Amino acid sequence: VISVTPEPPYTAVIFTSVRSTDTAGYDQTAAEMFALVETQPGYLGAESAHTTDGVGITVSYWVDEASARAWRSVLEHVAAQHAGIDRFYRAYRVRVATVVREHAWAKPPPDQQLT
Amino acid sequence: VISVTPEPPYTAVIFTSVRSTDTAGYDQTAAEMFALVETQPGYLGAESAHTTDGVGITVSYWVDEASARAWRSVLEHVAAQHAGIDRFYRAYRVRVATVVREHAWAKPPPDQQLT
Repeated sequence: VISVTPEPPYTAVIFTSVRSTDTAGYDQTAAEMFALVETQPGYLGAESAHTTDGVGITVSYWVDEASARAWRSVLEHVAAQHAGIDRFYRAYRVRVATVVREHAWAKPPPDQQLT
Repeated sequence: VISVTPEPPYTAVIFTSVRSTDTAGYDQTAAEMFALVETQPGYLGAESAHTTDGVGITVSYWVDEASARAWRSVLEHVAAQHAGIDRFYRAYRVRVATVVREHAWAKPPPDQQLT
């Protein structure tokens, strides 16, 4: 759910989208892309959240910009991008960013808490 | 919904969280923070998506790292962060990143489409 990423710097691709009403095949395409991206060189993980009103944010993490760029050109992914433009999305924005600092926190399990 | 951000570079703060079951007051605190952040110097916008299973991603955008860092120290925000750790979240990860490239797309309105 929350990706365990290495020490920065590494690359984040922030994909924010607004879905169209054309949903046929979307879930399958998304599942295929999540399966495929895991096999890509330089892939570190991804986080995704979708609100019921059709707003989605998916952030994928990569060892560097080159590996993120290579994923953009993978054949099946290109086809999915076309389906996204033709049918699934009303709008999106992709931002490529270099993570420079991070901080993770998790609640300790009950037996490690003081109270 | 999708922030209109300027030409890169600018700063993105990616906040990924898993909610606890303690939800009392969360919506109000979140609404107060979204109202307050809009008044902060250097704030460019934010995008947020929350899945019904408690996973949330909020990305806020800033003109630079200094303005993002300043928001971290605003009194009311510090209090909200404490409430987050004490009650609202089970885990989170914050990543500070420099956006180096972006691409926006939106479906043209029907009267501008060819078909």
